[in-house]
Parts: sequence; C-alpha cells; structure tokens
Amino acid sequence: MRVVVTGAAGFVGNGLARHLVANPDSFGRPLSKLILADLAKGPEDPGGGAFAEWRCGDLASPVWLDAVFDEPVDCLFHLASIPGSRAERQPDLGWAVNLEAPLALARRLARQGRETGIVPRVVFASTIAVYGPLGPDPVTEDQPPRPVISYGAHKLMTEILLADLSRRGEIDARSVRLPGIVARPVSGSGHGSAFMSQLFYKAKAGEPYVCPVSRDAAAWWMSLETCVANLVHAARLDTHGLPTTRTWQLPALHARVDDIVAALDRQLGDQTGARVRFAPDEETERLFCRFPPLASPVALEAGFLRDRDANSLVESTLAGMQR
Amino acid sequence: MRVVVTGAAGFVGNGLARHLVANPDSFGRPLSKLILADLAKGPEDPGGGAFAEWRCGDLASPVWLDAVFDEPVDCLFHLASIPGSRAERQPDLGWAVNLEAPLALARRLARQGRETGIVPRVVFASTIAVYGPLGPDPVTEDQPPRPVISYGAHKLMTEILLADLSRRGEIDARSVRLPGIVARPVSGSGHGSAFMSQLFYKAKAGEPYVCPVSRDAAAWWMSLETCVANLVHAARLDTHGLPTTRTWQLPALHARVDDIVAALDRQLGDQTGARVRFAPDEETERLFCRFPPLASPVALEAGFLRDRDANSLVESTLAGMQR
Repeated sequence: MRVVVTGAAGFVGNGLARHLVANPDSFGRPLSKLILADLAKGPEDPGGGAFAEWRCGDLASPVWLDAVFDEPVDCLFHLASIPGSRAERQPDLGWAVNLEAPLALARRLARQGRETGIVPRVVFASTIAVYGPLGPDPVTEDQPPRPVISYGAHKLMTEILLADLSRRGEIDARSVRLPGIVARPVSGSGHGSAFMSQLFYKAKAGEPYVCPVSRDAAAWWMSLETCVANLVHAARLDTHGLPTTRTWQLPALHARVDDIVAALDRQLGDQTGARVRFAPDEETERLFCRFPPLASPVALEAGFLRDRDANSLVESTLAGMQR
Repeated sequence: MRVVVTGAAGFVGNGLARHLVANPDSFGRPLSKLILADLAKGPEDPGGGAFAEWRCGDLASPVWLDAVFDEPVDCLFHLASIPGSRAERQPDLGWAVNLEAPLALARRLARQGRETGIVPRVVFASTIAVYGPLGPDPVTEDQPPRPVISYGAHKLMTEILLADLSRRGEIDARSVRLPGIVARPVSGSGHGSAFMSQLFYKAKAGEPYVCPVSRDAAAWWMSLETCVANLVHAARLDTHGLPTTRTWQLPALHARVDDIVAALDRQLGDQTGARVRFAPDEETERLFCRFPPLASPVALEAGFLRDRDANSLVESTLAGMQR
C-alpha cells in the first residue's frame, strides 16, 4: 500500500508519519511505501528506513507532483496548508497552497481513479474555521459553514470538491474538520490560535505567560495523539455508508482556558497556574475563543475520538512533548 | 460605467443584454460600455450600437480575458456556464468553465480592486442545484447546500470564493441562485430541466408533447423577464447591509406542471392542455421535479421579485416569446 502525506514536516504531519512508521499495518494491508511530501524535511525524522521516503518540493509545481505521484497512490493525507492568519496577510500564498494545490491534487487523483481503476482514499484536514462566528448556543454537526477568513473559505471549497469527485467514484474522500491541535511548536507558522499551544510550552518551561484571551474563554481542543488517531480512522472507514458530504466535524473537547491551566497546574505543580496572566486581545478572542459547546454524535457514532476532559488532554499532550 | 456580461449569447445573457441596451441608466450612472462576452455572437443582436460590443473567445484563455478586461470594469455579470447534465457527461469541460473560469475571473477582478481602487460589482448566476435532494417539507433560505451534481458543487464553491473576496473588499459580489428560467430555446444545451421550457414551445407551436415528468410534479419557475429584473436588482443593491454569504435564493414560483399546462391552456386555447401526455422519467423527476414549497422572505425583503402565479408566469413568458 502506497501512502502520501503532504505537510509531512508539519506538527500534525510529523505526528501522523511517526504513527504510520510505527504501525505499518494500520490499513489492514501492509504499508509498502510512505511518501513524505513537504517543502523541506521536518526537524524530526519519523524513521521508517527504506519504506518512508521524503520528496521535497512545492505543491504548486506540476513537475514535482509528477514525481510524488509517479505511481498510483492508495491513500493521500492532505495536511499541507498555510494557516489562517498568515493566509490573511499573504493572500496569494494562501490562494496557491490552500485553494489551487488541493484542487490540482484532487484532479490528479481523480484522473488516477478513472485511468487506473485504483480509486485513492483522500483524507483531507479541514478546519473549524469553515464555520465563521458561532453564537452562544451549542453547535451541532448541522451548523451551516459561513467562513470569515480565506483559510476557512478555501478549506470549505475543497471539502465540496472532494465530495463531488467521490460521488463520481473517481476518488474516495474523507474530510475532517480539525479544532486547535496541541501542543503545536511555537513558530512563525501563522496560527492565530497559537496561544492554545503556548500555554503548554510556557508551563512546561516554567516560564510566565501572558495569555491573549480571558480566563473564561472557551475553545475546541484536541491532543495530537487523538488527532492522529482520527486521521487514521478516517482513512480506514468503510466507503459504504459514508455521508454525501464526506465530511465530519471531529469531536473536539470544549474547554475553558482556565480549565486547561488548572489541569497543567495539577500535573506540573510548581505554581504553574500562578505564572499565567490574562490580557485579552479582542481579535484573537473573537476568532478563537468564543466557541460554544459542540455536540458531535454522528462523528462519535462513526468511531472518531475525543479527548475525554481537560486532565486527559493535558496528560496526553505533556506525554507527547516528552518524546 | 463599464459592464461585462459573460454568456451573453445564452438565453439569460441575451435577455439581460437587451434589457441593459434598452435601459442604459439601470445603475444610476450611464452605461458607457457594455461588453458582451461569449464563445460566439448569439442568434439575436441585442442592439446597442457603439456602446454594446461583442468580444468573442474562450473563458479559459488568459489572452482573451486580457482583451475583455483591458480597462477596469465596474460590473461583471457572470452567467457563462456548462449546464448540469452536460457537465456530468463532459466533466473536463464542466471543470474548465464552471470552476476554473469563475475562479480566474474572480481573481482577476480582485486584483483590479486592489490595484486600481475600482472595486467591481460581480453578479454571479448560481443555481438551485447547490441544494441536492430536497425533502417534502418547505425549504427556507437556510437550507444547507449539499449538491449532488458537479454543476451545483462548482457553483457553490464559486459563491464561497466570491463572498470571501468581498469580505476582503477586493470585489463586491452578489450571488443569486436561479431556478428553472423559461422559456429557454430548445437546443442541445444540456439542461436536464429542458422540459420546463419545452412545455411552452410545444404549446405555442400547437404540437403534442410527451412530458418526462408526472402531472403533479412540482418545480421552481421564473420567467426570463423576472430573472433579468432580479439580476439587475442584484447589481444595484447597496453594498451596505449585504449578508456575509453575498448569496440569495431568488424567490422562485413553486408550481406544479399541470398548473402550468392549465395556464397555457387558458391563454392559448385550442386544446393545448389535451396535447400534453405525461410519461415520467425517473431520473428527470428526481433531479428537477420534487421541489417542495420555497419560502424566501429575506430575498423578497431585499426587493427580489417572484412571478406571482402560474398565469402570470405563462403570460410573461408567452409575451417574451412573441418578440
């Protein structure tokens, strides 16, 4: 089985690559080749010896894509993207990576499906940014998507395209809307939700942290471990019985920032909680911290996972940071 | 004021072009140039002398687009598309015209908006095919779109993109979802809903007609006259107060096929109704004739029009066919 991961050098991509290397039987039949696609190798080698292979280049380059897809692919995990706030600042880059690249990938794989009969599974990392502003009422899986950043708009467009190509039987797509995944390495990656991860890094380093949202702000959280399990689960789901939209809202944990801080305090001690100060930034809070409770019975029924509570999320996340 | 109409040789495009030529003051300031863009001139000259000008070429050609958009445009009506059933049969053509072309146009106009400060209005002819299968219950303007043909998927993706570029202030888009517009000339245009127009043509010609849906099938109808008025209204609406989605479901007339036949019979006499025989085709009925009642209070409040009833629709449509 031949699997491609785009964005393999990123936080989620690296986590997924390590998981697949450690579990090459994840899909029922053995993984014979794992192609790790990104602009450059990541800081951390996922291992895998001969069967995991980096192919570094630009998603916008057809020549490079020809090299990545030189043989029919059984499964693509498309994770590469320009994060929301960076895409707002660099709209041409966002357009190229978040819109044109997935369209070109989808079209290429649809051609593979038509021409070779090997209909590739496509797991697409979509985002809760598709929704736009949410009210205070609990959100269900029927929440109409009304994105207010280009990142969310482009991801939503991609979901629709993947569902349509799946309906035609040319690909077999599964889009999952990711919440904030922690603890993402702090970098200039352009995630407006970076504070969600900063809480963990600063706590672990024993450093003070000025949090740009208020203590009672609530967000949707998921540990990397749970996220990776969900991506693999999406790929493994039987084609039969998938919804028309081919899209799931992953069952994120709805938690307040101070619940996370309290759990960090419990697990790390050493006055961790006391070192966090809250200085809300209106824009950050508006975009990332007015999330109402989320009900995702359909996704849970389909076997997707949620971090159980703040303690469990923090425990899993701190363990992941130990590696 | 410089206005471009794509698909100007088509049924709706020609109706719009004739209206604009006859009403060059439709927008508050005078129309100085009306560019009629299509693969080739239509069968009917909309008139307009020097101020209306055909530019014939392929939307997929950047060189031709450079010629069409050689000067900043104040308003684009983007009507060109490959109809649904034809796009299903010719997916590459559908992709090029229904997806790539509007994306390229939107991007070109966004660049104009950024670089010249002339933020173009864009009126986009979307479609009720965005919804997919509808149940028996009345549909509201909140109906979630779940397209099951590529035509609908591509139109929905375009709506989302246009709304996002409008949010960025680079264009000023207004998407309107068109129902079945009558009476479209009968041709190989690939509209699965062609029977809606055939009813009119056959009745007017005094010919028998085997209707591919049952007599109690119901569809969403709009006369060309009402459709053109709605397109112009969309362009005229104040930017202030437009919804985030920049999208309206036009207030179509929900009517049964036998109501339309009865109205034709009343207005044309001569046993018109008796010449229609019903031989339902399951696929046509499924896609085009299980439309529930439609409530569109938001669009009506915004000033969009609906044909009042079957009699009024038939009267307006027959009058249009007299020209």
